[in-house]
Amino acid sequence: MSTLYPSLEDLKMDQAIQMVGSGPLLGQLVAPVSGNSQGTRRAEIKPGMREIHLCKDECGKTGLRLRAIDQGLFVQLVKANSPASLVGLRFGDQILQIDGCDCAGWSTDRAHRVLKRASAEKIVMAVRDRPFQRTVTMHKDSTGHVGFVIKKGKVVSVVRGSSAARNGLLTNHSVCEVNGQNVIGLKDKEVTEILATAGSVVTLTIIPTVIYEHMVKKLSPTLLHHTMDHSIPDA
Amino acid sequence: MSTLYPSLEDLKMDQAIQMVGSGPLLGQLVAPVSGNSQGTRRAEIKPGMREIHLCKDECGKTGLRLRAIDQGLFVQLVKANSPASLVGLRFGDQILQIDGCDCAGWSTDRAHRVLKRASAEKIVMAVRDRPFQRTVTMHKDSTGHVGFVIKKGKVVSVVRGSSAARNGLLTNHSVCEVNGQNVIGLKDKEVTEILATAGSVVTLTIIPTVIYEHMVKKLSPTLLHHTMDHSIPDA
Repeated sequence: MSTLYPSLEDLKMDQAIQMVGSGPLLGQLVAPVSGNSQGTRRAEIKPGMREIHLCKDECGKTGLRLRAIDQGLFVQLVKANSPASLVGLRFGDQILQIDGCDCAGWSTDRAHRVLKRASAEKIVMAVRDRPFQRTVTMHKDSTGHVGFVIKKGKVVSVVRGSSAARNGLLTNHSVCEVNGQNVIGLKDKEVTEILATAGSVVTLTIIPTVIYEHMVKKLSPTLLHHTMDHSIPDA
Repeated sequence: MSTLYPSLEDLKMDQAIQMVGSGPLLGQLVAPVSGNSQGTRRAEIKPGMREIHLCKDECGKTGLRLRAIDQGLFVQLVKANSPASLVGLRFGDQILQIDGCDCAGWSTDRAHRVLKRASAEKIVMAVRDRPFQRTVTMHKDSTGHVGFVIKKGKVVSVVRGSSAARNGLLTNHSVCEVNGQNVIGLKDKEVTEILATAGSVVTLTIIPTVIYEHMVKKLSPTLLHHTMDHSIPDA
């Protein structure tokens, strides 16, 4: 089975290391080591499903907004400092069950009614990690750029010869996270700043824009910008 | 960190096992064991990228058809018994580099020209495993069904209370593989037969239909049905 590399730079570095073997150049090579980067680990989308336990805050809220898409139920919004953010729920997570009931085929309204009526002490959810999203790991060049242009939160172009080009970053994709930090709803300028202060390894979590637009339907831009959890997650 | 389960049935089985502990009921529980299923392993989409070496057949062909989408390059068709099928390329794989050149921004025509001119002995490709696809693992019920209806290769409905519902299978998704076997272009009747003869654990590889339709543009249904590799892959 072929070796899998987090980024093309890791692949090339591995080849370079193999070529120089144990010769004099070896000490001079600096491996990109994308996979060990904290941001890459935080961003990692985990296949399979997990169970979480949620409880409501003192106002009886979960801080969660859901949306029904294609007969499934998805997280549309996670409010900052809410029970939902505490248990690690993220935009795009698929909720499969709430308190033992399949969410398949539920309307958005029904999902919110169920949440409203659920116990304040413990709500059990089966969750699939962000099925519509994936990550792309890249390395900054000597000028600090990975090589793409973002407009209204969407990748609109990829710079030739850049790490983004090498790693096949695609246009028409909306950026959900930078190194595991949610950037949905932030202004392009804010996202660019987060990218600038990020380390040399940048892992983007992306989603096809056509799907993103379904997910944020009826969600006001204000809520997206000011209410959603944009904090830097713990490792 | 929460335990990850391949299917909801695995999650429930694990909970049942924990509840009965080492009591008299334990011997009667039969764990779904989705993850160890051969079909689930074959279907697994591997994050990261790999390098492959391709050579042309006696007619100078690779058996590969590519398509440019969103400034990236994707496998549109893998002909049966071709060099491309031999090295494990699959519909939807993203080709990042051919012989050291980034494919970012290439047109479909340019990609085919490059392949045509490439060496017959060795073509080196950096590949990302099917970035638009994902898997859903389900268990057949006592009547042998997982609980969804397929029409023109697309999931159009999910049966309430079924494994498909429990595991959040979505509508508006096209089925690419059943237990790692490519079913793209096959008639619904043929796919249903493959499902019927599959074991009790069924892993579907799916892709949002809106994206699938982009990928198969300008690809004749005849090619899809008769030329594409639909063989059962090795473990």
